[in-house]
Amino acid sequence: MYACILPLAFSFMKQFISVNDVTNINSLVEKALSYKANPFIDKGLGANKRIGLLFLNPSLRTRLSTQVAASNLGMEAIVFNVDKEGWALEFEEGAIMSGTTVEHIKDAAPILGNYFDVLAIRTFPSLANKEDDYSEMYIKQFIKYAGVPVVSLESATLHPLQSLTDVITIQEDIKRGAESLRQNANSIQPSAFSSKPKIVLTWAPHVKPLPQCVANSFAQWVNAWGEADFVITHPEDYELSEQFTKGATITHNQDEALKNADYVYVKNWSTFNDYGKMYENDPRWMMTNDKLALTNHAKVMHCLPVRRNVELSDEILDGPNSLVTQQASNRVWAAQAVLATLLTSLRGGTK
Amino acid sequence: MYACILPLAFSFMKQFISVNDVTNINSLVEKALSYKANPFIDKGLGANKRIGLLFLNPSLRTRLSTQVAASNLGMEAIVFNVDKEGWALEFEEGAIMSGTTVEHIKDAAPILGNYFDVLAIRTFPSLANKEDDYSEMYIKQFIKYAGVPVVSLESATLHPLQSLTDVITIQEDIKRGAESLRQNANSIQPSAFSSKPKIVLTWAPHVKPLPQCVANSFAQWVNAWGEADFVITHPEDYELSEQFTKGATITHNQDEALKNADYVYVKNWSTFNDYGKMYENDPRWMMTNDKLALTNHAKVMHCLPVRRNVELSDEILDGPNSLVTQQASNRVWAAQAVLATLLTSLRGGTK
Amino acid sequence: MYACILPLAFSFMKQFISVNDVTNINSLVEKALSYKANPFIDKGLGANKRIGLLFLNPSLRTRLSTQVAASNLGMEAIVFNVDKEGWALEFEEGAIMSGTTVEHIKDAAPILGNYFDVLAIRTFPSLANKEDDYSEMYIKQFIKYAGVPVVSLESATLHPLQSLTDVITIQEDIKRGAESLRQNANSIQPSAFSSKPKIVLTWAPHVKPLPQCVANSFAQWVNAWGEADFVITHPEDYELSEQFTKGATITHNQDEALKNADYVYVKNWSTFNDYGKMYENDPRWMMTNDKLALTNHAKVMHCLPVRRNVELSDEILDGPNSLVTQQASNRVWAAQAVLATLLTSLRGGTK
Repeated sequence: MYACILPLAFSFMKQFISVNDVTNINSLVEKALSYKANPFIDKGLGANKRIGLLFLNPSLRTRLSTQVAASNLGMEAIVFNVDKEGWALEFEEGAIMSGTTVEHIKDAAPILGNYFDVLAIRTFPSLANKEDDYSEMYIKQFIKYAGVPVVSLESATLHPLQSLTDVITIQEDIKRGAESLRQNANSIQPSAFSSKPKIVLTWAPHVKPLPQCVANSFAQWVNAWGEADFVITHPEDYELSEQFTKGATITHNQDEALKNADYVYVKNWSTFNDYGKMYENDPRWMMTNDKLALTNHAKVMHCLPVRRNVELSDEILDGPNSLVTQQASNRVWAAQAVLATLLTSLRGGTK
Repeated sequence: MYACILPLAFSFMKQFISVNDVTNINSLVEKALSYKANPFIDKGLGANKRIGLLFLNPSLRTRLSTQVAASNLGMEAIVFNVDKEGWALEFEEGAIMSGTTVEHIKDAAPILGNYFDVLAIRTFPSLANKEDDYSEMYIKQFIKYAGVPVVSLESATLHPLQSLTDVITIQEDIKRGAESLRQNANSIQPSAFSSKPKIVLTWAPHVKPLPQCVANSFAQWVNAWGEADFVITHPEDYELSEQFTKGATITHNQDEALKNADYVYVKNWSTFNDYGKMYENDPRWMMTNDKLALTNHAKVMHCLPVRRNVELSDEILDGPNSLVTQQASNRVWAAQAVLATLLTSLRGGTK
Repeated sequence: MYACILPLAFSFMKQFISVNDVTNINSLVEKALSYKANPFIDKGLGANKRIGLLFLNPSLRTRLSTQVAASNLGMEAIVFNVDKEGWALEFEEGAIMSGTTVEHIKDAAPILGNYFDVLAIRTFPSLANKEDDYSEMYIKQFIKYAGVPVVSLESATLHPLQSLTDVITIQEDIKRGAESLRQNANSIQPSAFSSKPKIVLTWAPHVKPLPQCVANSFAQWVNAWGEADFVITHPEDYELSEQFTKGATITHNQDEALKNADYVYVKNWSTFNDYGKMYENDPRWMMTNDKLALTNHAKVMHCLPVRRNVELSDEILDGPNSLVTQQASNRVWAAQAVLATLLTSLRGGTK
């Protein structure tokens, strides 16, 4: 039934933690868009397969879109809110567990791996200990002991399902533009952009210190994708880790960055160097229509939830340039493409 | 498969927020009772359809009965406890979101509408701001932005799934009485009641101020149904909003009201005029067997949860006149009839 | 489809609260192991059947394994966290409910029994009132009013799904040993043990007072099973109730107990006589490799969650003698065998 899509999109995947787990971004995007066109085409792929969705932190879009994606594949998703329904997990090797942690990841993970065919986990950073967070200690220990493919639902430093969605949404928009051009001009242009699209990731103000995950991950994916002119702009002191941004142009001048931008990704993050702090929180960094005027009629993106009139103005979010609803809706197809690839890889006999 | 019931019960429905969304109450009741007789007759109707059940407040019966109803129709139900698993939503237009609300309904609702075919939401009143509550600001904004049919799981002023259940239960009981009469008398009477049944909604004491929803909604439905002699009784100061009660006889004399009653619906509510308060809480308003003696062997109803020996005495709840278990069980069939009508309407091509 | 296993394993079961509800332990174990070998063989058995999983206390393994077990049988499982999503239930007959309890079990249970074909409930002991706890007031009232088969997900004094799992795990290990012997010796020995295996239940230190459920229940099942030499060891003051331990040898000398043990079950519990207390909490009772040296290369068991290096040392849990992961994984097959037996009994026409 799903054999027909294998030649096109099959890439072996053993986990989905970062862009490094993806052999071909464009194939994965194409697969996601084929699911958007036909959600139930692979309904048999997940028969008698189960994914456990484990949340150590709250989630709306990630949880629901992954449940819907699994269900579209005929796969059962079971949600477990570890933070509310479970208990504190211990991650330290050799710990004498006489304190508040109730169960060691070494004991919990293999059992969950026995109950489920795939495990997905959300585990936010502490924003208190940079070394622990950036070593991805929690999700790495989980992977080490689970014994089944692990999907990140956002970890300490990355949010790959979001970033895949972001690339899907940009590609979809580019295709739509190209289609529109073809129809208007009767020409057969491969892209609406004469050259690569210019994508700008801009820092925005917020009311509390947030993880760097979405920004890190977006940078990592756009760089790996390689089909954009990529600029990151933020106030001084808000540098991101070079391991994710390398390849992008970085500037502290937002106006300069926005010039001729085709896509503007708006996101707050806390400081990386002096870890997890809020330094300057200048409201002039909020994205508005005035700033949009500097761009090439750019489309505006945000991962949501968004603080209206703090990060982004109502006029943009309610206007024609906003992609945020389309973007959040695409979370389903991103998750479905990833789960389908994992399921196909499982059938390949790797478990 | 389900075509056979369409000629009987099909009525287009675009949402289910109040009795005003129902074109024919008796058809809907009949549909519910047909599901009670044969729960899985429309198991194919909900194939590849999903309902999101969003709770901003706690729920037992409403949640479980709606999940069961959806499942009987082969429809997937996904529960999201916004109050526990999510975050505070902003409902004010133009808000500068620098406070405690994390996401605007304008951003959350359309995405949920993209993830689900039908959305159901529970959102209680504040009991602090009468204008906001009675404008149904929350659920109306939700409807405005969701883009898919919305079902109320109890809103600020109404609880239509409960009221449909109540009418179902009364009709079922009337039919049972008629059936019993037929069998006993070999006569072919159309109803056990020589005239319309007398239905009394009576206020009862409680330990804290409760919404007016169940009482408002019951009044609205019984009035719209129109096949009863309908009396409402409560202490002075506990008047309900006229928009729901108009058509009913209202009295502050409970004994007078109960005379010859065939059905007594017991429910507490807080004050409407001086909004959300507890004035008098006279224990003599508790429904007891002594009061039942004033009625025409009335059946007693309550939406549950009930404070035993505060609102209603043990002797009634444990006695032969109580309909409360049957009533709560009928919640499944009410929800199933509503969901089936919405699904059939969706197939009619309105999405 | 499932008829083939009926001749082997069918035993009528009207509920699953303790070992007393089981007519043949070995048949049930065999059924569980047949599901382990072929999880989906009875996928049609639960069609259009639903189990409600009600948690008045937290759960990880019990919840997930029961969900998976139900799903393997094609049965829908709906989880309701009464402690978090619901409200406080009243269990006292005749209570005037003017306090904090919102709904009486007499009203809640029959409705849940109408929504579901089977109900499962977790309700921990108070550890404050021995008489209430040991009368199993909560689960008994639930059974009394539910009107459908009830499964204990751990009650005030027992944890039968855990104990069934424990017996399954021991039998599986014995068979594996026998198999290994057969292969090594070309002999046809019926068991790896020349006589009955020696099973030791040993108390272990902990950081807070825990229920006696797991220990009580393990003792009850091993005694009922009758195919072991069963020893219980604990410090003075930690006697368990005789109603569960009768038949076992009891000693306060752990070293003596461990001699020649084939299976060591490690578990903490609080005091039974002076109810719910922690008396001595001697760290020397922790199970370590030094103690393991006293045994007959015993396999070590624990129900999890385990406090590492308080109850059991890392060296044991991470070593070759630990059965804990296998044991926890077997929870699925125990639950599946119980649910299948209940479903088959339901079909027998008892509902």
